[in-house]
Amino acid sequence: MLILGVDPGLTRCGVGVIEAGASRRLSFVHVDVIRSKPEQPQDLRLLTIYNGLCAKFDRFIPDVVSIERVFAQENRSTVLGTAQVAGLAMLAAAQRGIPTALHTPSEVKLAITGNGMAPKAQVENMVMRILSLNEPPKPADAADALAQAICHALRPAGAIQGGEREEHLTAAQRQWAVAMQKARRGRGGIKRDM
Amino acid sequence: MLILGVDPGLTRCGVGVIEAGASRRLSFVHVDVIRSKPEQPQDLRLLTIYNGLCAKFDRFIPDVVSIERVFAQENRSTVLGTAQVAGLAMLAAAQRGIPTALHTPSEVKLAITGNGMAPKAQVENMVMRILSLNEPPKPADAADALAQAICHALRPAGAIQGGEREEHLTAAQRQWAVAMQKARRGRGGIKRDM
Repeated sequence: MLILGVDPGLTRCGVGVIEAGASRRLSFVHVDVIRSKPEQPQDLRLLTIYNGLCAKFDRFIPDVVSIERVFAQENRSTVLGTAQVAGLAMLAAAQRGIPTALHTPSEVKLAITGNGMAPKAQVENMVMRILSLNEPPKPADAADALAQAICHALRPAGAIQGGEREEHLTAAQRQWAVAMQKARRGRGGIKRDM
Repeated sequence: MLILGVDPGLTRCGVGVIEAGASRRLSFVHVDVIRSKPEQPQDLRLLTIYNGLCAKFDRFIPDVVSIERVFAQENRSTVLGTAQVAGLAMLAAAQRGIPTALHTPSEVKLAITGNGMAPKAQVENMVMRILSLNEPPKPADAADALAQAICHALRPAGAIQGGEREEHLTAAQRQWAVAMQKARRGRGGIKRDM
C-alpha cells in the first residue's frame, strides 16, 4: 500500500511517500517540498501548492493521503494558510477518489516514538531508522510529511478515531484508543469541524 | 463589471452576483447558496462546495470575485472550515485567471451602511435598497454574499488596503483608509497571512 503524507503549509508544503508492505515493513519512496513565494498574492500561492499536490498525486497514485490535522486553537499567524492547504490536499484527493486520513502532530509523535510529546529530533531519528535512511530527510518539513505517512501505516489495524464505538476492540486497538484520547486531551480536544 | 461575492462556509456557502454599471449603479443578477451535508466526510464536503463554486464562476464569468476575509482570532468552531472554503474560492478564481479581493465583515458593513458595526438587519435592508429588491434575499447567507459583492463595488476607486502608501490619496480615499484602519483595530488587526 502506497501512503502519501502531507505536512500542509503555504510557504513550504511537505510531501512524503512510503510503501507499506507485508508485516508492516515500511520503505521510503519519495520526499519533496512544494513551495510558494510569500510575496505572491494568496490566490496564486494556493494555486501553486494545489498544482504541486495534484502532480504528486498523479505521479504516485497513492492508496491513501494522510494529512496533518490543523487546530483552530493554535494561535500561530500561519494557521489559516495551513488549514487552507490541508483543504486543498483533501480536495485534490477527493477529486481522484483517494481516501484521506487526518492525524494530529501528537498522534504522529506517539505512533513513531511512543511519546505524543516527543521532541522533533527524536521523531526525525525514528523516521530515519524506520525507513532505513542514511541521513535525515531535508528540509524538516519533508521529515514531517514522511512521519505523517508512517503514522498512518503504524496505527493499529482498524484504529479507532475519537467518537467511534470501542466495544469490539482488540487489546492493541484499545491501547491505541486510550493513548489517542490522552494525546487529544493534552491539546484541548479535537476540533471535529476541521 | 460583474462582481461575484462569496460568503464562505462549509455547510452553506453564499454566492451573490451583481452588475456594477456606469455611475456606480448596481443591479442584482443572481443569488444562491451552495450546501454540503455535515454528515459527509470533510474531503467530500470540500469537493461539493468547490464544484458548486466552479459551476457559478463558469456560468457568470465574473470580472472579480470578492470573498469574506476570515480571521484566525475568531474562536468559532467553524473557522477552519470557513477558511478552507475561502481558500477553495481563491483557488477556483486563480484557475480561471479571475482576480480576487478579500473584504472583512466590518469593511462590508461600513461600505454598505456607513457603520462597521451595523446590525445584520440594517445591512440586509440596505442590500435590498441598493439592489432595488422587493424582499430580502434568503437565506441570510445569500444576503451576506451580495453584501460582499456590493462592498467591492462601492469601495472608493483605488481604495487602499492596510499597509499601502497613503500619500497620494484623494479625500474620499483617505476617509476610507482611516475608517478601514478603525474597523481593523476593532477586530484586533488584520491577519496578513489569510
